[in-house]
Amino acid sequence: MEACYKISRALQSVRKTKPLVHHITNYVTANDCANITLAIGASPVMADDICEVRDMVALANSLVINLGTLNSRTVESIMAAGKRANELSIPVVLDPVGAGATPYRTKIAREIMNEIKIAVVRGNLSEIKALYGINVKTKGVDSSEEFSADKAVSSDIKKVAQDFANQFHTIVAITGKIDLITDGKRVKLIKNGHEMLSRITGTGCMCTSLIGSYIGAENDYFHGAIAGVATMGIAGEIGYSKLDKNEGPGRLKVKILDTIYHLSEEDILKWGKIYEE
Amino acid sequence: MEACYKISRALQSVRKTKPLVHHITNYVTANDCANITLAIGASPVMADDICEVRDMVALANSLVINLGTLNSRTVESIMAAGKRANELSIPVVLDPVGAGATPYRTKIAREIMNEIKIAVVRGNLSEIKALYGINVKTKGVDSSEEFSADKAVSSDIKKVAQDFANQFHTIVAITGKIDLITDGKRVKLIKNGHEMLSRITGTGCMCTSLIGSYIGAENDYFHGAIAGVATMGIAGEIGYSKLDKNEGPGRLKVKILDTIYHLSEEDILKWGKIYEE
Amino acid sequence: MEACYKISRALQSVRKTKPLVHHITNYVTANDCANITLAIGASPVMADDICEVRDMVALANSLVINLGTLNSRTVESIMAAGKRANELSIPVVLDPVGAGATPYRTKIAREIMNEIKIAVVRGNLSEIKALYGINVKTKGVDSSEEFSADKAVSSDIKKVAQDFANQFHTIVAITGKIDLITDGKRVKLIKNGHEMLSRITGTGCMCTSLIGSYIGAENDYFHGAIAGVATMGIAGEIGYSKLDKNEGPGRLKVKILDTIYHLSEEDILKWGKIYEE
Repeated sequence: MEACYKISRALQSVRKTKPLVHHITNYVTANDCANITLAIGASPVMADDICEVRDMVALANSLVINLGTLNSRTVESIMAAGKRANELSIPVVLDPVGAGATPYRTKIAREIMNEIKIAVVRGNLSEIKALYGINVKTKGVDSSEEFSADKAVSSDIKKVAQDFANQFHTIVAITGKIDLITDGKRVKLIKNGHEMLSRITGTGCMCTSLIGSYIGAENDYFHGAIAGVATMGIAGEIGYSKLDKNEGPGRLKVKILDTIYHLSEEDILKWGKIYEE
Repeated sequence: MEACYKISRALQSVRKTKPLVHHITNYVTANDCANITLAIGASPVMADDICEVRDMVALANSLVINLGTLNSRTVESIMAAGKRANELSIPVVLDPVGAGATPYRTKIAREIMNEIKIAVVRGNLSEIKALYGINVKTKGVDSSEEFSADKAVSSDIKKVAQDFANQFHTIVAITGKIDLITDGKRVKLIKNGHEMLSRITGTGCMCTSLIGSYIGAENDYFHGAIAGVATMGIAGEIGYSKLDKNEGPGRLKVKILDTIYHLSEEDILKWGKIYEE
Repeated sequence: MEACYKISRALQSVRKTKPLVHHITNYVTANDCANITLAIGASPVMADDICEVRDMVALANSLVINLGTLNSRTVESIMAAGKRANELSIPVVLDPVGAGATPYRTKIAREIMNEIKIAVVRGNLSEIKALYGINVKTKGVDSSEEFSADKAVSSDIKKVAQDFANQFHTIVAITGKIDLITDGKRVKLIKNGHEMLSRITGTGCMCTSLIGSYIGAENDYFHGAIAGVATMGIAGEIGYSKLDKNEGPGRLKVKILDTIYHLSEEDILKWGKIYEE
């Protein structure tokens, strides 16, 4: 309940301050990321050229680094923008899409963790494990492992997430059937969302953009991460509840954007399933 | 009224001649730009490699240059394609996305204005001012300034737009709550559109693609620019009028495409709000 | 009828095995390709950097090469990934978008045909002719020629497709008002789809992603190609049948994704129009 009120206040803060969220991201879901950033009330800018990223990030309230279609040209830009953001105390969110799938992705994702101070890292369980150095078998950009919705999150996973957060002084958000967010000490679980979200590309990327929007407006990154993950899950669940039986993921994406645009304190209180561990 | 009839005739001309609109554009809104170009009845092609842009533009009826995710690789292609288009008298539309936000964007946008003959340049007020050399504070790719819908467009702004148009022998289209289009002498104002359009990424880019579609089919670039801007605004307004109260920007984008596909002379006459200044 | 049952079985196989479909594709329709791959039950991954494509394709069940926004950087990746796929007997689908439009596209598309063993090549009539070395006038990425829906496919076209298939030991799928699929000997015609599909960008690309999904789950590439083309056409036709009269291509795209997500054996049997030639 208290967590839901906090999300609601954070949402008001995003809508009031309209933070500029600089994205260095992939070309598969960039449109969706821009639209969800606008839907929640923030302002997205996508810019990845080395000639301008330092200047662009200096105007921004947060930086989202997304490795979806990682390539040699943008790695340089990511490093430059990330370091400049650190100098200016602009928070950075990392979405290590596909970490663990190829050695290149894992290597670059780890370099980013090592060279840039990351406020929040959000990934699925495979990506986070790969980033932390645990061997995983991943299948492309989708997680090969999941928290089970039926049982509690294992204490192993919780420990990995907390250790990772402590080692890098960052917030770790692992999303899946159940979402786990930790700052190393505190652990929150979120049980919103719907299975159909996994049949829409970029729901993870969009979640990361929401986190970027919240931490661009709020100084408490732990709550910003909770707010971003919960907003995505709640919008997915409300959106799904409004589908006709012959509608599917195409329509659900449209409804998620519409739901976030109209999201109210009432919705968050009614739908939010956020638990202390 | 007369302006609306002209738009309707231009629309028929696009649908009849199906102009090929070559885009060198960004990866955030490329899909929307292609879809709106198809919706109005033109044919989009996106190609940005230096190895083929000169050949591609030679097949086209117009060239759209959009700086959304400007990068060093495509700058060379933009210059080559623009110059070839000029040689072949194929009209070029420029969308200087984010000009003023970073020195790099401003510099490249100005180089394009100086080296390529631009038939129409469309941007928000910040972008156009930055391009013209007036210091502006921009916030990413969104305008930091707006015409107020409540008061008349200031004579200052009008003068800037006209001077800019005269200096570069181009048509200037400034879009926002009110849209202003000028060829240096004549000034038209368009009061269509809806505030929710600013919550969909790429409505500016899509507007530019519509201008590209019209001037690929018509020789009168001033009227082509008016037609493109008015079509976007009218479609946005009709689309919005059909939303249920819990629908938002996700659904509105879908409705804009559908509205443009079905747009009739009747719609244009009923909804068009185009004024001589 | 038998063909429809086979498609239905192939669909079950995709949903059961969830093949990973590695795409090296364009930035215009990448989002739609990812979403249609998820909608049918497969798993897309888009990765195009030379540093990782060999590793990524090794995890995949099929590789989709799409030349939509072909550029010098990705040509190298295409060749490397294609050769690695061949070594590992992972089937490769080629979508030669815009072949024939510029010498560069035609040249690269032919190099790919010559250097990589292609399981299925899918294009419109202009693209396939250009690839086979027949002079065509193309207009950007849209076909300048079409099978007529009113008359039978000419024996000339059939011969071109069969000769092409025989020469390269590949499956050729030519899509348009009527679709033709041949392995050199057998020829199938599919008469599904609707004209409005040509007003949505990327329906060809999405069709290719569906073929990639099927041949990632099935060893029979001829039937995989038929299944992919038929699924796209059937979904387009069902989607269109559910549009209100004021809806258009924007809504149709959403409905296509939803239809494919829910596609049943009953739908395929009811709507499929697949003919032996």
